[in-house]
Amino acid sequence: MTFNKELVVRLLRYKNALLKLKNLGVLKVFSDNIADTAGVTASQVRKDFSLLKIAGNKRGGYQIKELLEDITDIVGPTSGESIIVVGCGNIGRALINYKGFHSETFEMIAGFDISPETVSGSLTCPVYGMDKLEEFLLGKNIKVAIISVPDNVAAEVYDKLVKLGVKGFLNFARVNLREIDGVFVNNVNLELSIENLFYYINFMEKGTSI
Amino acid sequence: MTFNKELVVRLLRYKNALLKLKNLGVLKVFSDNIADTAGVTASQVRKDFSLLKIAGNKRGGYQIKELLEDITDIVGPTSGESIIVVGCGNIGRALINYKGFHSETFEMIAGFDISPETVSGSLTCPVYGMDKLEEFLLGKNIKVAIISVPDNVAAEVYDKLVKLGVKGFLNFARVNLREIDGVFVNNVNLELSIENLFYYINFMEKGTSI
Repeated sequence: MTFNKELVVRLLRYKNALLKLKNLGVLKVFSDNIADTAGVTASQVRKDFSLLKIAGNKRGGYQIKELLEDITDIVGPTSGESIIVVGCGNIGRALINYKGFHSETFEMIAGFDISPETVSGSLTCPVYGMDKLEEFLLGKNIKVAIISVPDNVAAEVYDKLVKLGVKGFLNFARVNLREIDGVFVNNVNLELSIENLFYYINFMEKGTSI
Repeated sequence: MTFNKELVVRLLRYKNALLKLKNLGVLKVFSDNIADTAGVTASQVRKDFSLLKIAGNKRGGYQIKELLEDITDIVGPTSGESIIVVGCGNIGRALINYKGFHSETFEMIAGFDISPETVSGSLTCPVYGMDKLEEFLLGKNIKVAIISVPDNVAAEVYDKLVKLGVKGFLNFARVNLREIDGVFVNNVNLELSIENLFYYINFMEKGTSI
């Protein structure tokens, strides 16, 4: 099977749908449940599962736990994946110490900053200067980096990391970093997230009078 | 017009689509451009714009800048909206000092923590004890709060804030807070965001051999 970006997008939707259903206490699902939650057709779900050789009794439904394990086996992160943070301001330092990034699956191994000597506070991994980035990444196969540098240097840092082989980015700078071939960017725009909440609320309050 | 959640969801998609196109340097758009970027039909876009009395010359296209202003006029946040953070650990403290939350639109006015006396570092707003929350919110019409408390108390804090009239939430705890009627929750799951990046990357690398 050749690489198919649509399939992996759907697979992620299935995974996230399954996690949502699991959070509701659901143990067993049918392709219709996954389809409804993920926003695709049930026949597409069955087709994808068949293509990926995900077993399960179609009529009897699938166990959510087993499905999630199957999906993780296919494309999930293996344990002990290393991640780095570039830009150790307020957000960067908080992410370095974030518990979820010191787990069996992920390990935050280093921070980088233009002025590492000024990065204060008790941190759970070392912080190096930006000039050490290339040397550090060499031969380490680090796939994912978090960008939390000032907005005006985010694109430059992104280009540099892509050239050094990093494939996945969580971006906290307030600029949209554009995905290029084979590179994935998750732009976390905190202001936009808050703004969207106000849109919902205001609309709801005004809704009856528009 | 009665309240219609689907319409506001589409409006947000239009807004985000317009921002993406604007970032690409586009100045003028047609309903087809918005439709393609937002994932709806062009006739739906035109119908919604007509319903909301958004002008623009259908044949000659719309100016992105004007469209964004129109949408903001309808449901956007007014200036000087106050927001608060509940839970002042690493993430909470970083969010208090986050520049985007001290703008013309938003102002981070207070943090709350179970042990405010132990919250260290130079912060751009005061931090109060959790026991001061109710008194503080009384009569202030604060619509949006950020939850960055430990996972095991997130649901309890959420319930409390909803009871005190908060309508919108940005949630950093690693539990899905479920939306109830008239309340909007944006769950920011940092671990899941990173995990999804690994899924993409691994799939791309394995893609040809599955």
